[in-house]
Amino acid sequence: MTRAYNFCAGPATLPEEVLRQARDEMLDWQGSGMSVMEMSHRSDEFVSIAETAERDLRELAGVSDDYAVLFMQGGASSQFATIPLNLMAADGSADYVNTGIWSKKAIAEASRYGKVNVVASSEEGGFTTVPDQSQWDCSVEASYLHYTPNETIGGLEFDFVPDSGPVPLVADMSSTMLSRPVDVSKFGLIYAGAQKNIGPSGLVTVIIRKDLLGHARRETPTMMNYQVIADNGSMYNTPATYSWYLAGLVFKWLKAQGGVEAIGQLNQRKASKLYNFIDDSDFYANPIAPRFRSWMNVPFTLAEDSLNNDFLAGANARGLLNLKGHRSVGGMRASLYNAMPEAGVDALIDYMAEFARERG
Amino acid sequence: MTRAYNFCAGPATLPEEVLRQARDEMLDWQGSGMSVMEMSHRSDEFVSIAETAERDLRELAGVSDDYAVLFMQGGASSQFATIPLNLMAADGSADYVNTGIWSKKAIAEASRYGKVNVVASSEEGGFTTVPDQSQWDCSVEASYLHYTPNETIGGLEFDFVPDSGPVPLVADMSSTMLSRPVDVSKFGLIYAGAQKNIGPSGLVTVIIRKDLLGHARRETPTMMNYQVIADNGSMYNTPATYSWYLAGLVFKWLKAQGGVEAIGQLNQRKASKLYNFIDDSDFYANPIAPRFRSWMNVPFTLAEDSLNNDFLAGANARGLLNLKGHRSVGGMRASLYNAMPEAGVDALIDYMAEFARERG
Repeated sequence: MTRAYNFCAGPATLPEEVLRQARDEMLDWQGSGMSVMEMSHRSDEFVSIAETAERDLRELAGVSDDYAVLFMQGGASSQFATIPLNLMAADGSADYVNTGIWSKKAIAEASRYGKVNVVASSEEGGFTTVPDQSQWDCSVEASYLHYTPNETIGGLEFDFVPDSGPVPLVADMSSTMLSRPVDVSKFGLIYAGAQKNIGPSGLVTVIIRKDLLGHARRETPTMMNYQVIADNGSMYNTPATYSWYLAGLVFKWLKAQGGVEAIGQLNQRKASKLYNFIDDSDFYANPIAPRFRSWMNVPFTLAEDSLNNDFLAGANARGLLNLKGHRSVGGMRASLYNAMPEAGVDALIDYMAEFARERG
Repeated sequence: MTRAYNFCAGPATLPEEVLRQARDEMLDWQGSGMSVMEMSHRSDEFVSIAETAERDLRELAGVSDDYAVLFMQGGASSQFATIPLNLMAADGSADYVNTGIWSKKAIAEASRYGKVNVVASSEEGGFTTVPDQSQWDCSVEASYLHYTPNETIGGLEFDFVPDSGPVPLVADMSSTMLSRPVDVSKFGLIYAGAQKNIGPSGLVTVIIRKDLLGHARRETPTMMNYQVIADNGSMYNTPATYSWYLAGLVFKWLKAQGGVEAIGQLNQRKASKLYNFIDDSDFYANPIAPRFRSWMNVPFTLAEDSLNNDFLAGANARGLLNLKGHRSVGGMRASLYNAMPEAGVDALIDYMAEFARERG
């Protein structure tokens, strides 16, 4: 068996140690005679798994008791509706920052539920930078201010947390969650689809300040009502138990790596290596303003698009997988989530250098 | 490693062969260098896994091209809202049959979206029977007629498919799906949480007649819009890929068992053995009208409730797990889903006989 280096943007590579443990426990979790996926979510065993995962996530991300931590289903895309349904009054409004394709999806869905003010956008320049906050046209009347700290497709990442004043700050952290230290106390709500830095798809974690619970609109489906989910410890119905368990294994793994501080330093080093190589090359290019280059998702182009297929074929042959860029952007994209070892980045750079020498 | 017999009502026991294959493929699916949970949902590998699972489900359940098959998230509980949002006009109504706790939950959620007519109920008698259809107060004006073919908690199962005339028939088949042959062509919509006969929790399968697509209300969250999910092959956003893969393994396993016809005969035999033993005993009892006893969930009581804890402790010691009944019903419950081998039922009966001899 050979494990490849998988640069997929999501679902993404997971730590090999986590997969090994999941494999070893597949038929019999710790002498229980059952797989975790066969356990009642109300059983002592699973409740312990679930609570440990929540505790570890709180510790890793620095989440205080002022916040509820929810393990929900439906991905970040369901949250695009869940957020306005819970936080925006029917006659209210919300502010959104538009920095890429995921911002736009969040804006489109929220617009179906009320007035959305796009307070800043970098679309005109092709989403290559983050608009200067001094120019944002925010309102203190807004129910919340929403932004996307890391745009998975564009490879654009905020290096600051916006100041939203008294307005709750809401962030789609799907592709940056747990990749670097963040001061959670600055946020009203943080959500993250699991399939990048947390675990398998089909799970979405929500960290919500408790004073924001209990304001859902009448038409909110019960399964989307944050108050209901919080009151029931994310077990109003049967949760995605196996995904929750795997997330817990990833949290344990991350703690063993030294936590978010340590992984953040590693992530910065991994990304810097690749960006420096790209910048030093006259064959590869990345369009993002250097200050806002993502640590997690590195899009790059080759000098000629006609070489793309050869580049991908050669990469696949070396076990460097899923480097094809998103169809809306083209070129390549290397996702360097927490579970991508530095050796994977080194192997990618070696290959890129060789390809440029031979075909450049 | 010892595998126990797990009688949990859900998440429930899975076929050991399925777990073994999932274990063996955990780090490297068929030489891909990746776990299935690390694959892009857009990759050729995963699309093939997903399409094969859908094809096998269609074959097993006998689903024609007149129906779309969806792999959604959020469990059956999310469907309780999704169904009225998609099928009931805001000024319309829907008919519901009330045969137990899950019916009641479906009714409660639908009532938040429009007029619900409870056309029949067996609540007064403690949900021990199915109301005679000749007495149902159905309306041809209803947007649909909803019922729960198998009540997981009460252990009550329809032995017929209601005749809804021109009104679309909607069924929550969570705990009976694929357990016996069903004529899908009689239904407008069938939904089933996976965590009983299909796979892990966090996945819900929906079989919907295509003419029922495209009628979602304006306020329907996009992720709950059947038309959107169908148009995108259940990949409007990242689906629960690993759960979908496991469901596919279960479908392959079920085909190898001879399909739904063969498993239905086995299920009937398993259930009959246990009910016959209970009826022949003066120590155990089941309250459900014999004609409507569930093949999947068998609740039973002991002669004295004070013996319950001893019964459960003795069962656990023998590796007969999760026999405690639902808190709303009390007593015991043995769930005999497809993956419960007949040997498990035999072992349960042996234990029940011994316990009755010693303590009865």
